[in-house]
Order: sequence, then structure tokens, then C-alpha cells
Amino acid sequence: MPYSEETAGYRFNHTMLRIKDPNISIPFYTDIIGMDFIQKLEFSDFTLYFFAFDHTKGKATETEKKQGRLNREGILELTHNHGTEVLEGNPYHSGNSEPRGFGHIAITVPDVEAACARFERLGVPFQKRLTDGKMKHIAFILDPDGYWIEVLQHTL
Amino acid sequence: MPYSEETAGYRFNHTMLRIKDPNISIPFYTDIIGMDFIQKLEFSDFTLYFFAFDHTKGKATETEKKQGRLNREGILELTHNHGTEVLEGNPYHSGNSEPRGFGHIAITVPDVEAACARFERLGVPFQKRLTDGKMKHIAFILDPDGYWIEVLQHTL
Repeated sequence: MPYSEETAGYRFNHTMLRIKDPNISIPFYTDIIGMDFIQKLEFSDFTLYFFAFDHTKGKATETEKKQGRLNREGILELTHNHGTEVLEGNPYHSGNSEPRGFGHIAITVPDVEAACARFERLGVPFQKRLTDGKMKHIAFILDPDGYWIEVLQHTL
Repeated sequence: MPYSEETAGYRFNHTMLRIKDPNISIPFYTDIIGMDFIQKLEFSDFTLYFFAFDHTKGKATETEKKQGRLNREGILELTHNHGTEVLEGNPYHSGNSEPRGFGHIAITVPDVEAACARFERLGVPFQKRLTDGKMKHIAFILDPDGYWIEVLQHTL
């Protein structure tokens, strides 16, 4: 599409997934995936948690991260509907069995072998290891709710 | 989380949604949402379509867009499983009725009133207009498969 003034400045800001338990998902997306936890918005029945990779090498302040939350791309929003954390089993559906729809989120990394070795070491479950199937350059790990996260390299 | 060398360079590259008919979804995401259609990857049973907002004001070449596909954030990947385009009804699930999971993607815009007025003019269906409900600063439009797209302003 040719450049249009009408939609100039639009950004694909975020993707929202529902989660069962923030006490499990927050450490997963920060310590394991490596995103910053940038903001929490509490409502009476639910709480929203926002995450993003910090591309400033740690130079951005908490205030700058919050202020930039709506003005950048690559934000992950996790919705916790209060009370789901005490349910038995997984209340949410990954979209990859019937009824299908959403497929996955994807992170790209400088070195996919190193990233997957690190996920293995940290005990992250895999849906597909690099060595599985035909496509040897991509892996899929599973987040705590069973959502698929594709892992592939910046350069193929 | 403090800045970590281990995950430095990771990017939240893309979100994947399955679509029924690329001949409907491609014009929607380009002409109406304003994204660039940057790459198509064909396989025997399915085809992948990649979209992203161009933040270079139209200066990026097609080659630069393709080369940057894995090295940026804010990419939308649409998967077309061949043959779904002739099915009756909608084969895919938005995630917003049972079984729930994925919620929405979101675009942020410089002027949410102007963006919503333009979507109305173009005949896009709304799940929630700015005037509906309590949260007057956000709207939700529906994509051709029924996925929810939140629309909100860069600055609240």
C-alpha cells in the first residue's frame, strides 16, 4: 500500500491474552522471556499487566516506560480475571485446537540455538523443539497458560 | 526486571491469527487499517501473509521491508489454510466467547475520534463504539474473521 497520511502514525501497539495467575505469568514473561513489566492497571473484576522488551539497554526509567506504553509496538497485555487463579486446571484455550483462531505470539532472538538451550535449562515446556519436524529453524515454547510462543532468529 | 545481556536483542516480533479468506483480509489490513503487506510465504497447504505499519513515511523499499520482517516488532502474521475461503460461515473463533483465551490486538492512533469516524465511513463493524459503555476513550472494531481490534490514542 502506498504511504497514506490518513493512517500515518498508527501503531500495532499490543496483543492481549487472558491468564489464569499473574503470580506465575509475571515471572515467566520477565525472568524467562526477558520482557520488562511496565505497568499494572487494576479494575474491580480484573487487572491488566503490560510487558515489553526494553530496547534502550536498561536506560529507560519506569516513568518513560509507562509513558511510552501506548506509543510503541511490541507490547504484551495480560488480563487476569480475578479468581481464576484458584480454579482447577487451565481455564483458557490456546486457539490451536478446535475451535481454532489465534495461533501464537513470536519472539525473534539473535541466536535461536542459544535461546532454546536457555529455555530448556530453565525448564520451559516445548511444543516443538528445533530438532522436531521439518522446520529446523523455528521452535515453539509454551507459556504458563498453554499459549504457543514461536522462537526464531532475526536472520534466517 | 533489570537489564539482562541474556535476553538483550529479543523482540516481540509478531502475532499470528488464522483467516478464512486472504482476498478479504489483505484489503482490510492494508486499505482500512493502513498496514503494509510486506511478505507472502506459500506452502503446500497454507500461505502466510505478513503485515506491518511503515514508520519510515514510505521511504522503505520492498526489499528493506522483507529484510526487516524478523528484526522489528509489530508484525501481524495471517495464516490462510487453503480451502477455508469456500466454507460457509466463519471457521475461526475470536477467543472472546467460550472457550476464551486470546482477546484482541490493538492499534494506537494519533486521534482516536478521527480514526473511528474514518472506520465508520469505511463500513467497518464495531464491537464497541467510543460512546458505548464506561470507557469512552477506547473502541473495538471487528476484522473480517471477527477478531477484535482495540483502537485507542497514543496519549490518554
